[in-house]
Amino acid sequence: MRALTFQGPGEVTVQERPEPELVDLGDAIVRIEASGVCGSDLHIYHGRVRVEQGFTLGHEYVGTVVATGEQVRSVAVGDRVLGCFQTACGSCFHCMRGEYQRCVESRTFGHGSTLGSLQGTQAEMALVPHADLVLRKVPEGMSAEAALFAGDVMGTGFHAVDASGMRPGDVVAVLGLGPVGLCAVQIAKAAGAAHVIAVDAVESRLELARSFGAEAVHLTEQDPRAAARAATAGRGVDVCIEAVGDARALESAIRMTRDCGAIQAIGVYAERAEVHLGLLWLKAITLRGGQANVIGHVDRVLAMMAAGVLDPSPLVSRHMPLDEAPEAYAIYDRREALKIVLTP
Amino acid sequence: MRALTFQGPGEVTVQERPEPELVDLGDAIVRIEASGVCGSDLHIYHGRVRVEQGFTLGHEYVGTVVATGEQVRSVAVGDRVLGCFQTACGSCFHCMRGEYQRCVESRTFGHGSTLGSLQGTQAEMALVPHADLVLRKVPEGMSAEAALFAGDVMGTGFHAVDASGMRPGDVVAVLGLGPVGLCAVQIAKAAGAAHVIAVDAVESRLELARSFGAEAVHLTEQDPRAAARAATAGRGVDVCIEAVGDARALESAIRMTRDCGAIQAIGVYAERAEVHLGLLWLKAITLRGGQANVIGHVDRVLAMMAAGVLDPSPLVSRHMPLDEAPEAYAIYDRREALKIVLTP
Amino acid sequence: MRALTFQGPGEVTVQERPEPELVDLGDAIVRIEASGVCGSDLHIYHGRVRVEQGFTLGHEYVGTVVATGEQVRSVAVGDRVLGCFQTACGSCFHCMRGEYQRCVESRTFGHGSTLGSLQGTQAEMALVPHADLVLRKVPEGMSAEAALFAGDVMGTGFHAVDASGMRPGDVVAVLGLGPVGLCAVQIAKAAGAAHVIAVDAVESRLELARSFGAEAVHLTEQDPRAAARAATAGRGVDVCIEAVGDARALESAIRMTRDCGAIQAIGVYAERAEVHLGLLWLKAITLRGGQANVIGHVDRVLAMMAAGVLDPSPLVSRHMPLDEAPEAYAIYDRREALKIVLTP
Amino acid sequence: MRALTFQGPGEVTVQERPEPELVDLGDAIVRIEASGVCGSDLHIYHGRVRVEQGFTLGHEYVGTVVATGEQVRSVAVGDRVLGCFQTACGSCFHCMRGEYQRCVESRTFGHGSTLGSLQGTQAEMALVPHADLVLRKVPEGMSAEAALFAGDVMGTGFHAVDASGMRPGDVVAVLGLGPVGLCAVQIAKAAGAAHVIAVDAVESRLELARSFGAEAVHLTEQDPRAAARAATAGRGVDVCIEAVGDARALESAIRMTRDCGAIQAIGVYAERAEVHLGLLWLKAITLRGGQANVIGHVDRVLAMMAAGVLDPSPLVSRHMPLDEAPEAYAIYDRREALKIVLTP
Repeated sequence: MRALTFQGPGEVTVQERPEPELVDLGDAIVRIEASGVCGSDLHIYHGRVRVEQGFTLGHEYVGTVVATGEQVRSVAVGDRVLGCFQTACGSCFHCMRGEYQRCVESRTFGHGSTLGSLQGTQAEMALVPHADLVLRKVPEGMSAEAALFAGDVMGTGFHAVDASGMRPGDVVAVLGLGPVGLCAVQIAKAAGAAHVIAVDAVESRLELARSFGAEAVHLTEQDPRAAARAATAGRGVDVCIEAVGDARALESAIRMTRDCGAIQAIGVYAERAEVHLGLLWLKAITLRGGQANVIGHVDRVLAMMAAGVLDPSPLVSRHMPLDEAPEAYAIYDRREALKIVLTP
Repeated sequence: MRALTFQGPGEVTVQERPEPELVDLGDAIVRIEASGVCGSDLHIYHGRVRVEQGFTLGHEYVGTVVATGEQVRSVAVGDRVLGCFQTACGSCFHCMRGEYQRCVESRTFGHGSTLGSLQGTQAEMALVPHADLVLRKVPEGMSAEAALFAGDVMGTGFHAVDASGMRPGDVVAVLGLGPVGLCAVQIAKAAGAAHVIAVDAVESRLELARSFGAEAVHLTEQDPRAAARAATAGRGVDVCIEAVGDARALESAIRMTRDCGAIQAIGVYAERAEVHLGLLWLKAITLRGGQANVIGHVDRVLAMMAAGVLDPSPLVSRHMPLDEAPEAYAIYDRREALKIVLTP
Repeated sequence: MRALTFQGPGEVTVQERPEPELVDLGDAIVRIEASGVCGSDLHIYHGRVRVEQGFTLGHEYVGTVVATGEQVRSVAVGDRVLGCFQTACGSCFHCMRGEYQRCVESRTFGHGSTLGSLQGTQAEMALVPHADLVLRKVPEGMSAEAALFAGDVMGTGFHAVDASGMRPGDVVAVLGLGPVGLCAVQIAKAAGAAHVIAVDAVESRLELARSFGAEAVHLTEQDPRAAARAATAGRGVDVCIEAVGDARALESAIRMTRDCGAIQAIGVYAERAEVHLGLLWLKAITLRGGQANVIGHVDRVLAMMAAGVLDPSPLVSRHMPLDEAPEAYAIYDRREALKIVLTP
Repeated sequence: MRALTFQGPGEVTVQERPEPELVDLGDAIVRIEASGVCGSDLHIYHGRVRVEQGFTLGHEYVGTVVATGEQVRSVAVGDRVLGCFQTACGSCFHCMRGEYQRCVESRTFGHGSTLGSLQGTQAEMALVPHADLVLRKVPEGMSAEAALFAGDVMGTGFHAVDASGMRPGDVVAVLGLGPVGLCAVQIAKAAGAAHVIAVDAVESRLELARSFGAEAVHLTEQDPRAAARAATAGRGVDVCIEAVGDARALESAIRMTRDCGAIQAIGVYAERAEVHLGLLWLKAITLRGGQANVIGHVDRVLAMMAAGVLDPSPLVSRHMPLDEAPEAYAIYDRREALKIVLTP
């Protein structure tokens, strides 16, 4: 089968790879209908996350089940399914606490031996371990390009809002309007936020946030802190979702958030950084981060998407055939698209 | 001033009453702009709740502050305000746990000595104790008829959803589509319910629920349990809001709710009744009831109304002058209106 | 092997039964070291719960793993283990919400085809499906008679307290001091209850509760309601654990619990009953029941037992060999023992 | 009356000051029976927190009510009371969310105009605003030296554990065994922690922690991280209470805490610091800090102290008369005492 593989920093290739085969009784094999290119793929593309040469990339996917191990109960051959970007075992310490994102046996598609040596989904077929936990049937009438958001980007946006403890009537700020930030805007609105302040420096992203019902605030040409104060009688926002992943954004988040409020850092931090601990402490803010618990949220996300409460389709800016995936990576790397969907 | 007073079962009169005067330092006096007639008023009208002859009725209100005690800080003379239907002290055992509805000193407007001897608001003026906790400024541009919902009916709908523990993506059923049930439909949708099943036997109410985004199900001509199963792969709804207040509705709620789900009984129960405890237990359902914590929720409700996320105005079916309040009670008693707003 | 089997109401026999064999890859086989006789066994003994003739009874157990399917990771041959009284799959709707007690594939040991046709543990050996979820290693130095509580009675007591939402500093009442009630007393104290009122009519049980730090109150010779008022400045208890399972006990619970408090009904209800809904509603009490989520709690319970924070050993009143199990059932049926431990 | 006043860094004096008088209707005046010297007093003593010359210090206190404003209901003249270290209004945005520690009108005793210009309690008498929220009756039989912990140090320890989300059966680490850390050890144990690891470099403090049931680990001579791993099968602790207040301790906390665990920073941070955000994020740890919500917790703390579940008396290492308060400050500054109680 054809698959997009990593060759080295800045270099990916579509090449012939062996078709996957069932290994465990809980496995399924999915014939891919569509796969997304995601910001995490760029970490690999840039060489920041190390992946073996020839490893298949990709972790967002929709397709059709073509084989299942005998213990798989929730999906069957012929089902149209979407999948989560990582697997979980369902019975370890973390899974039993519902913390599927920290499952001790978790494997992430398309990230090489760093994250479990599970071949990616930007290919014609993919092996899906723990299919009962990882796969879900695509609700009738849902497009592939929408469905693949449920197992990654929209699930991550949901996590950002859910883990923050946001309650209906809260005022929320979202810093950074990449796909995850934009999904977080949608979810905050859908979950009853009275007001969402969406901050970025790219006008087209601000425009999308505006169309989702947010107050769009330009990072440098406007004043995000003033917007937060204006919307909250000077207190600051109840919840700030930091979807950038750098220390400057965190500093803004600390300043924009009210006393006893919450900051949910969904953007990835990888290093040490200077933090205004004094202000964080004085304001008694709760700071929480980490990868999204997509498996824990996927049923809710799908139900809301099926009901039309959430709709990721405005985020899809390009469709390309799998064979043009190297070009897709280059386009995505130049930030010329929010989400590119690849079709084998 | 003129005020609507109770004279006996089925008999209310507009009569001249002395204007209220400040008593405590936390009091405010409000000149009433609009007051609602509510289902609770009918309990008095029917003689089920005992009220002294000549006592002023009413507990939903919007108006303008005309005097304040010297400790009042959150509102000032001239402010346009709405108020909650009951008062709370802010410092007793229950208030310190945020359970304002069970404040040991709570007084309810317009319910006679049974609930604290606090004269009602269907009058030209009203005394409001603990004004800092009870009153809120009307957000700019909000109509009086909308604002008065925040302190009673919409607050009660909010409570029903909030106390139930509903989470975004849940499937919710609302049994009984009086004003509170209809508000609960709006709030469940606004808080991210993937699907709301709204049950009643009155077509006009079903139509309203439908316009709020619910699946409307006729109590007798359709099959509410089947609707619940159909929306949940046979499991039953995650949350059932019982807004009727009788044992038959509770029985339906128990049957429609999934294992480990929640029933929030917002309809008033007053007596003993046979309950299928065995089924409630087997399904491990959480059953919770009681008056709404309107003071605890009013800021959130107002913020959502100001943002247009909630809109009670479709529920207002009649406007009448205060002088015609006796006729308003008669109309309301015949269930010819969902909400009547009185203007002094 | 020898096993205690059901023959008909009031009649159980030790007979020869085939040894269990591994069926699924997640199974384990345990050589039983000790098994308990439990109140639930009496429901079968009395014929209230229907079980096939010849079916092996028992669901509390400690033993040594003698075989495992190839997917079992958390225990290995030779490990000394205890098990939960029921199984769960780890990946269904309920398991993914942590509601293991309502797993759609749950099977309970020793309850015949009513609860999944899983042979019981009052035998020399037992088959344990989903061993990763159901079994735990016995902490070093813990006796078999203590360890078998973790998977049933102590886990149920833990559930009663945990699901009630009890917080440190609360005042708690426990109605009914069978083994579960007595464990709930221990757990409430261990979890920081400021005061526990333990109610029963049997002096020896009251004495045990007293030794666990509770205020023991005789059901008829003393006044439980007065005790609740005295301990709470008249308000009523924050949490009431109803470990009897009848409507009269529930009525007491409603009267003893404070406004906005919680009743956790851990005693089994099976039928319809008259409930004072009016009072339940007026007091805004949360009522919750259902079987315990033992799988969800077993790690916490074991950790507390290993630390000496919980100690079920005072509840064990008899040890008997498996061959005398019919006599053990008769003794237990006459309520002459709180817990009988059988040794094969 | 005599009062201990601030004169300048390192200099405090007992001098004559006017007796306090009632100002607001919610005020009480308390004749002080005992007042504590606290770590926060040293911040003033060292000049890090600016206080006006001649301002009375102290914020821990027990005494007898000698006058009340007419709105005070919960205490009366003659009552023996303890008080919280700060006041709250009961009706602002934060108070209505139960976040009393961030009340917009909060005033802290003995901290000069920086924190509300409220004279301190190391004096013969003190004015207590919002007495209904701030004061509590001392339970019968409780010593003054124990009671004064409820309104400050033990309340802070309670907050550390409560806000962390610790659940019964968790493994907890406490870094820093000053009075607050030692109280946190007691509370973690009382709230059902299966195991508490207490870390400090002072042997006498470790000894106290050991006597409270903790595993005492020397900061430098032993290996706290290894202890955390050993107690948790290598995972790290569920909850880490950081009671030091510096970035090195926070780094240890991040390393000792398990994935998806919680760090409660109760030690005061005042400045920027480098934090290993990457590790915090990767482990999905929740970090929360801020002053304790003592008013929100005081009833629970008192109930647990009255029940003997908590006992701060081992922390009191010195009693001294108020007149020797300057010497007491010098002793405390040299860390020669954990808690000094002053008697007027």
